[in-house]
Amino acid sequence: MSRILIALGGNALGDNPQEQLKIARKSAKPIVDLVEKGHEVIIAHGNGPQVGMINTLMEEVNMPFPESVAMSQGYIGYHLQNGILEELRKRNIDKHVVTLITQVVVDEQDEAFKNPTKPIGRFYSKEEAARLEAEKGYKMIEDSGRGYRRVVASPKPIDIVEKEAVKALIEKGHIVITVGGGGIPVIKKGLGYEGVDGVIDKDLASEKMAELIDADYLFILTAVDRVAINFGKENQRDIEKMSVDEACKYIEEKQFAPGSMLPKVLAAVEFVKSKKGRKAIIGSLEKAKEALNGESGTLIY
Amino acid sequence: MSRILIALGGNALGDNPQEQLKIARKSAKPIVDLVEKGHEVIIAHGNGPQVGMINTLMEEVNMPFPESVAMSQGYIGYHLQNGILEELRKRNIDKHVVTLITQVVVDEQDEAFKNPTKPIGRFYSKEEAARLEAEKGYKMIEDSGRGYRRVVASPKPIDIVEKEAVKALIEKGHIVITVGGGGIPVIKKGLGYEGVDGVIDKDLASEKMAELIDADYLFILTAVDRVAINFGKENQRDIEKMSVDEACKYIEEKQFAPGSMLPKVLAAVEFVKSKKGRKAIIGSLEKAKEALNGESGTLIY
Repeated sequence: MSRILIALGGNALGDNPQEQLKIARKSAKPIVDLVEKGHEVIIAHGNGPQVGMINTLMEEVNMPFPESVAMSQGYIGYHLQNGILEELRKRNIDKHVVTLITQVVVDEQDEAFKNPTKPIGRFYSKEEAARLEAEKGYKMIEDSGRGYRRVVASPKPIDIVEKEAVKALIEKGHIVITVGGGGIPVIKKGLGYEGVDGVIDKDLASEKMAELIDADYLFILTAVDRVAINFGKENQRDIEKMSVDEACKYIEEKQFAPGSMLPKVLAAVEFVKSKKGRKAIIGSLEKAKEALNGESGTLIY
Repeated sequence: MSRILIALGGNALGDNPQEQLKIARKSAKPIVDLVEKGHEVIIAHGNGPQVGMINTLMEEVNMPFPESVAMSQGYIGYHLQNGILEELRKRNIDKHVVTLITQVVVDEQDEAFKNPTKPIGRFYSKEEAARLEAEKGYKMIEDSGRGYRRVVASPKPIDIVEKEAVKALIEKGHIVITVGGGGIPVIKKGLGYEGVDGVIDKDLASEKMAELIDADYLFILTAVDRVAINFGKENQRDIEKMSVDEACKYIEEKQFAPGSMLPKVLAAVEFVKSKKGRKAIIGSLEKAKEALNGESGTLIY
């Protein structure tokens, strides 16, 4: 029996509420496969399209970005927990699923705040962008000819406020949905926390949570079954397993695309290095069960 | 040491994110007063203005009402948990606060679905209202000369999906924020649950949760310090305490305004009747500590 944190993508969850619910139900099957095998499962997920939609539609009430993340956690978690619960009941597994609003602590001094790079929300015209820069102090960039978008920082996760609650629930046998969208970004302020505009990389936040709850496996899901080197070239090779040293060598060779496979491999390496015996897998959700047996996915050890 | 479920109002949380955060911080003080006394505290809250805003702004993506409730739980819970955590730290209390996305089960056959009465979201013109009735099957009513609004059912809560998680967290010493906005309304469907359009009365949902987690006290907060009879008349009398029988007599005399004090008294009575030793208090948040000592609020026993 292992403790497994699964990091789902946000893009893979569809474009509207109806689609998202359908996909959440479908995703439940491979997740419950792992539960059925006796593993403790914790779910993290992305929220890119969802939080963009929420933040854009809430513009007229000046909804801050951290609050928009909180909303996306409720919205996505509700669908995921329902899909998983139904699948559990179908298989007569008497377990519960629950969604926790999760805040991830970042450092106010993180270098990322000096150079925001992560686009959020909708596209604007040049004039609108200039107005937003002037009125709200947003940083706007031109995005590959499609217009202007707001960019925010992508700081590193350093702690998770709700880690003890996640542990308490796992220990009572609950399946926990947490760190949605990389978590609500907060900084320490006085004796409490304060939300900041930023997007924490979902894979890095999942890695941090996996460390804090002492998971055995970090399972990062992606659209392909395995990590590949020489991707898209004639000599492309899918990797069944790689050591941390091999992974670092490939990273140095720039084998992995930034913003796509690279952050996943980085998160995997960080997790494996954090404690002896910890393993990471990058693979597809459909083959989660096989990946744990070494029959699919890329194992990082 | 008692287990106390506190039901906060949604109207009292302000009209915008900035105001809500400020009020959440202020509300934290009387809540933490109770924690400091050694009590186990569970927080429920309303979401009327917040879910109305969310549902209205999300109209163009056809965001269903249950999903809007889930978002409001994330949005409000995030502020409340932050306010409470900061207050705990100020007093050197080593406890955690957490928000759970909460689904409340209602009966598909509930009579309320035949006669929706609860207005949600924004006002429409007569023409828009007619179009929504035709296109989306909404029921629209004219609302006191201010235009047309959508109405949904207000079914009775019969169970709460996440009750075991709430219990697990309380037992580990966590302060839990739950049943936001009366909960996400769901009906049993196959082996799982499905969201339905409806607003579950926040006080009744809080009462149900208080029963399920075996609370000692249900504390329903309102804008006044005590329940009154002959309200607004010359012979108005504030009530320090009333038995269930007395409360029922006053209800019969129509002493309490429907949609305002009546649902609070009904929830209180239901809780007190549910098990020997259970007590309910209706009072103001500011005087929560005093109310527990009998120095403020109305005790229902």
